[in-house]
Amino acid sequence: MSTFSEKLKTAIQRTHGCLCVGLDVDLAKMPKGLSHDRDGILRFCRSIIESTKDLAVAYKPNLAFFESLGPTGFEILELLRQSVPYDTLFIADAKRGDIGNTSQAYAKAFYGLLTSDAITLSPYMGKDSIEPFLEYPGTCSFVLCLTSNPSSADFQLQTLQNGQKLYEHVAKTAVQWAQGKKGEIGLVVGATQTKFLKDLRALVPDTVFLVPGVGTQGGDLQGVLTEGKTKDGYGILVNVSRQVLYASQENDFAEAAREQAKKLVEAMKPHFS
Amino acid sequence: MSTFSEKLKTAIQRTHGCLCVGLDVDLAKMPKGLSHDRDGILRFCRSIIESTKDLAVAYKPNLAFFESLGPTGFEILELLRQSVPYDTLFIADAKRGDIGNTSQAYAKAFYGLLTSDAITLSPYMGKDSIEPFLEYPGTCSFVLCLTSNPSSADFQLQTLQNGQKLYEHVAKTAVQWAQGKKGEIGLVVGATQTKFLKDLRALVPDTVFLVPGVGTQGGDLQGVLTEGKTKDGYGILVNVSRQVLYASQENDFAEAAREQAKKLVEAMKPHFS
Repeated sequence: MSTFSEKLKTAIQRTHGCLCVGLDVDLAKMPKGLSHDRDGILRFCRSIIESTKDLAVAYKPNLAFFESLGPTGFEILELLRQSVPYDTLFIADAKRGDIGNTSQAYAKAFYGLLTSDAITLSPYMGKDSIEPFLEYPGTCSFVLCLTSNPSSADFQLQTLQNGQKLYEHVAKTAVQWAQGKKGEIGLVVGATQTKFLKDLRALVPDTVFLVPGVGTQGGDLQGVLTEGKTKDGYGILVNVSRQVLYASQENDFAEAAREQAKKLVEAMKPHFS
Repeated sequence: MSTFSEKLKTAIQRTHGCLCVGLDVDLAKMPKGLSHDRDGILRFCRSIIESTKDLAVAYKPNLAFFESLGPTGFEILELLRQSVPYDTLFIADAKRGDIGNTSQAYAKAFYGLLTSDAITLSPYMGKDSIEPFLEYPGTCSFVLCLTSNPSSADFQLQTLQNGQKLYEHVAKTAVQWAQGKKGEIGLVVGATQTKFLKDLRALVPDTVFLVPGVGTQGGDLQGVLTEGKTKDGYGILVNVSRQVLYASQENDFAEAAREQAKKLVEAMKPHFS
């Protein structure tokens, strides 16, 4: 079985980009003419996937939006999983983190049941909250490191007694957890944090970065790609959600999404050829 | 509308204890004779609630276990919510934490749809990941502070440049977020961390603590209650899961659960009379 990094590398070579399309389904922003129920949401997401599948290396459903729909949300998620082509990655953006037996249950939910290729996790509870996820071969558990929201500074940028920032300590520590395990560790690093990206990349040269915050959140795509790739020139996913998903409010939403995705991949191309 | 603290105080005065029963449904540990489907799980949880409802101040379903069941899990959760008496608190143990609009969706899922009284949240992403939860009156958002698992030391016990431990900084910072908001902030403090509890209580004298880790995880109940109550003598919930839930593997599991809950509340009584 291929590792997550290998699958990502193949997908990057296929698309000449590292675009991850975030499926943040927000009923208030959905194109007109789609019903706000299971069928409407499925049609919306499937149309987006269908129109961008040759451009995207990954799709990343944000669990919050699906959970806010109640039981139907998980059902939609399972059906969407089946709509993603086999050579494209499926990342459950869940930001979970709990003690051992609970993390086992989450790992079962997202890797076992939903057969995700990756999941996002919170580091706050430390190693034993992440380890159960590393039992699944071919997967990547993305640990929150330096996030794109303004108040990431509250804790992540705190300086420790040894002079390191908390997020640097998280990066160095989390990467070690994967040693000898079946699954990989990746890191979530916000695109709004490019000034820290170069140093972070030097600290962990081989770890896959999942980078949200390009687009609506204002991150700098070129800066991210110049500083963020792994030593071998791959190992990065740039997530864009709203800019692609809600490119048009009209019937042409899928074509409009494709145009946005194409523009993004064009901008990525020089970094991957 | 009563605040969460007021509802908790009333529940503590009613039971003379602060027992929160954790609904960590683990199919592998369920009593014999119960089916491993929606009906069996509902029957199990409802029997536990029915047999302990005069003893518990709160029930705390662990979301991981329900999510690992797929769409059915959320359905069961909604039905269980309706089985909890109106004077007993319902705490969604979800440990979520995400950026603004995503947190809004989680808040809608857990406070809006599920009408939980409280939720557990991860602090790693800072203030703006928690604020959307504070828009719901009568609720308490419990921020992870010092957890009961061994590797809580990985990050929570790191010393910052100002000499404070990270968890102390989290406590002081998080408590301020609730100022002027509709909902309260509480803190999750593991019972296995009693040696830190006294100092933490001095730091935040009025903040409700949710304390897991008593029972199977080995926390010291008397120590926790001596050190952990708020200034007014209430403001604490002690969560016990497995010791109550899996007290018997036989048909008498509900009576056995009641016996364990009764024993725990008896041990709590001297602190609340």
